[in-house]
Amino acid sequence: MQKDKRTSLTDGMFLSLMKSSLKGISQVILIENAVTGFIILMAITIFSYPLGIITLSSSIIGTLIGKLGGANENNVNSGLYGYNSVLTGIALTLFLTGPSQWFIALVGAALAAVFSAAMMHFMRNTGIPILTFPFIILTWFMLLASYKLKAFQLSPGLVPQDLSHWTLNISGKVDWLEGSFNGIGQIFFLDSTLAGILLFIGVFWAGWKYGLFSILGNAFALLISFVLGGEHSLIILGLYGYNAILTSIAVSIVFKEDHNRFAPISGIIAACVTVPLTASVATWLLPYGLPALTMPFVLSTWLFLGARKVLPRL
Amino acid sequence: MQKDKRTSLTDGMFLSLMKSSLKGISQVILIENAVTGFIILMAITIFSYPLGIITLSSSIIGTLIGKLGGANENNVNSGLYGYNSVLTGIALTLFLTGPSQWFIALVGAALAAVFSAAMMHFMRNTGIPILTFPFIILTWFMLLASYKLKAFQLSPGLVPQDLSHWTLNISGKVDWLEGSFNGIGQIFFLDSTLAGILLFIGVFWAGWKYGLFSILGNAFALLISFVLGGEHSLIILGLYGYNAILTSIAVSIVFKEDHNRFAPISGIIAACVTVPLTASVATWLLPYGLPALTMPFVLSTWLFLGARKVLPRL
Amino acid sequence: MQKDKRTSLTDGMFLSLMKSSLKGISQVILIENAVTGFIILMAITIFSYPLGIITLSSSIIGTLIGKLGGANENNVNSGLYGYNSVLTGIALTLFLTGPSQWFIALVGAALAAVFSAAMMHFMRNTGIPILTFPFIILTWFMLLASYKLKAFQLSPGLVPQDLSHWTLNISGKVDWLEGSFNGIGQIFFLDSTLAGILLFIGVFWAGWKYGLFSILGNAFALLISFVLGGEHSLIILGLYGYNAILTSIAVSIVFKEDHNRFAPISGIIAACVTVPLTASVATWLLPYGLPALTMPFVLSTWLFLGARKVLPRL
Repeated sequence: MQKDKRTSLTDGMFLSLMKSSLKGISQVILIENAVTGFIILMAITIFSYPLGIITLSSSIIGTLIGKLGGANENNVNSGLYGYNSVLTGIALTLFLTGPSQWFIALVGAALAAVFSAAMMHFMRNTGIPILTFPFIILTWFMLLASYKLKAFQLSPGLVPQDLSHWTLNISGKVDWLEGSFNGIGQIFFLDSTLAGILLFIGVFWAGWKYGLFSILGNAFALLISFVLGGEHSLIILGLYGYNAILTSIAVSIVFKEDHNRFAPISGIIAACVTVPLTASVATWLLPYGLPALTMPFVLSTWLFLGARKVLPRL
Repeated sequence: MQKDKRTSLTDGMFLSLMKSSLKGISQVILIENAVTGFIILMAITIFSYPLGIITLSSSIIGTLIGKLGGANENNVNSGLYGYNSVLTGIALTLFLTGPSQWFIALVGAALAAVFSAAMMHFMRNTGIPILTFPFIILTWFMLLASYKLKAFQLSPGLVPQDLSHWTLNISGKVDWLEGSFNGIGQIFFLDSTLAGILLFIGVFWAGWKYGLFSILGNAFALLISFVLGGEHSLIILGLYGYNAILTSIAVSIVFKEDHNRFAPISGIIAACVTVPLTASVATWLLPYGLPALTMPFVLSTWLFLGARKVLPRL
Repeated sequence: MQKDKRTSLTDGMFLSLMKSSLKGISQVILIENAVTGFIILMAITIFSYPLGIITLSSSIIGTLIGKLGGANENNVNSGLYGYNSVLTGIALTLFLTGPSQWFIALVGAALAAVFSAAMMHFMRNTGIPILTFPFIILTWFMLLASYKLKAFQLSPGLVPQDLSHWTLNISGKVDWLEGSFNGIGQIFFLDSTLAGILLFIGVFWAGWKYGLFSILGNAFALLISFVLGGEHSLIILGLYGYNAILTSIAVSIVFKEDHNRFAPISGIIAACVTVPLTASVATWLLPYGLPALTMPFVLSTWLFLGARKVLPRL
């Protein structure tokens, strides 16, 4: 009998851990919903089986560090210690290669949770969320380490470029539908239309508002990036869209308060601002050959959420 | 009769907006004075008619965003939402070219006001002013975007340089008087002696102390930059002077309190510190071909104002 | 008699200043102990007589600025205004050359104390120590200034490198004992085994715990850097060890509280994290030819101390 009790207790803890970890996956798109997390996990697993395993493991690692470290339980259960780990695990798996790849990705996932805790402390007074800042900085540092440590083997796609010899070539046809589905896929580094459709289903499951604003943010960003003359190849890959989707959801829905009357509009404007920001961050990183990741989303969202504290109508 | 009342109300609002906007222009040199703002606007307009229009429009845009967003009215009326917009508008007009130039400059002016609000929030706890930080970061980002977006066309003066092939050539004669008047002109990107004289008049109008410390800061910086072996061409253009003028006014006069006994001295020292800072920031930006703008002023002023909170006599 | 009294007062002030200055030297390794400071000063002086003079002068300058500026007396007496000045003075002496070298080093030491005060203010709300951040940023800026100011002459060892032409060569035999003693020496830029032994004596004098964790941190970092495939030449020079020593002492001993149950373990993990951080920071600085200094220590320690505020068991 006592054994049974203990088993059910262990079962309960395991279920709670799994639920928090799935929420950790959905928190990547600022949604706290285990089902959405599961649908996203499916989308990733269909795209690549090993990537699915890394995604789930990373979220579990991050959540466990939050639990064992003694963090606020609500935060842990909402998946707030998981999403930076998920992104770090995926990114390091994709941008590194060689035998240590998996090990580095999982250690990175663990460090992402520690970094998340530190950033929560440093930003506590501001009342502004840390978003995916820990994932971005940590991944950049881990990729830079590859130039000095043999065990970190960079995948061949990441090449440092000299800005003084850089020329912009935007030619190529834009496939708008492909660009749209790739936009949401790129949040998880997937450039697959099927994965994009599944992700949209996951987002709509969590609420039609999330779905609507992810479509709106994406559409405006695609349009603006085309009008401003962005590289068409990047537009098709969805690389001008994923930051806009996240920003639109964050500023229009998740972090708005009742007195922010213009929240839907300022969210769309913030999404548009990610377009030049994506261009700037990418240029800034060219000499290091690093990807922009979700930095444009973080910067634009911090900009508008910070401004809101002083301009309450925004 | 009622119509008259409404007209006079609109008139009052228009006058108040213009006054705040002119103060926004004078706040660039840390002065809250509509007449000084008007004299500066004249100096800019004489130098270039379109630049004068951009200056006034940018200040109005910034002030309007503050008003409409629901910011603290005193801050809006003092021009605190205008000066970063003014500088951003001018800088983007001068450093960009092509058909979208004006549009980008005015959108930049609007974003500068949003950024100012965000920075006010992020720095509130420190009790340290945001100075021109939003303008600097925003302008750098907008200029960097030009490498990835066709609509942003960089003016040919900004060329990225490889630090490993950089050689320093300081030769050339220094014209001290020209360098002095160019120093104050460079705050508004003007290298014209007449504009410099007008700007000095505007500064003295606001108070002899402002005038005195702008001359002192400039003189010390010119001397130090010459002694430390700065490029003579840059010294003549006033590029080692404008940050010193702003820093000297900020640390010696505007942001000092009664117990800061050594304020006049520490202001001059802070002005001198902008000289190596100008060199460092310029070097740091060489690979990106970006201008240092007023970053040396911001860094030196933050350094001394922050230190003052812990070293009260400074 | 009165003369005697005045003399003894002056004597007392002089002694107090010297004691604080020696503590300023020991604070470089997070220890407040005048004897340890003296032993370190000896180690530096044996390595290079002029460097010893710079070390002591820098600490005195920093401490004096704290005293004259009116800082909290306890902080001044504990040497908290000295250690950033010490490091800045030493670093500028070693990385610069030419006739102005000494003058720049001492001005740098003075600015380091002002910068320390400013950082104390900016980080006050976080409850996290400023560590050697002022020294690092100040030294980088001063070295960058050399590309634009003739008076700043860079020593020939610092060469900017293009990341796109960088190749990693880790070959060479590792002498583990030499690497170990060089690790602690590198904190003060000394690659001498004798100096390393003296420094260890100084550390053990302050308490066996300091000694133990400096050895542990160093050993783990050496091992990890070897396993991850760091350049063997750098491992021998102790360049993967000095940040680990500082981090291990900081996280395991100095800045832990009673409820941080896993402090010894998290200190060692933090020390291991400095290894990839050292690689990343060095890569990031390659295009500028700047040394990483103690930035990996600062980043890793901030990461873990910040996380501790949210994960109390860490």
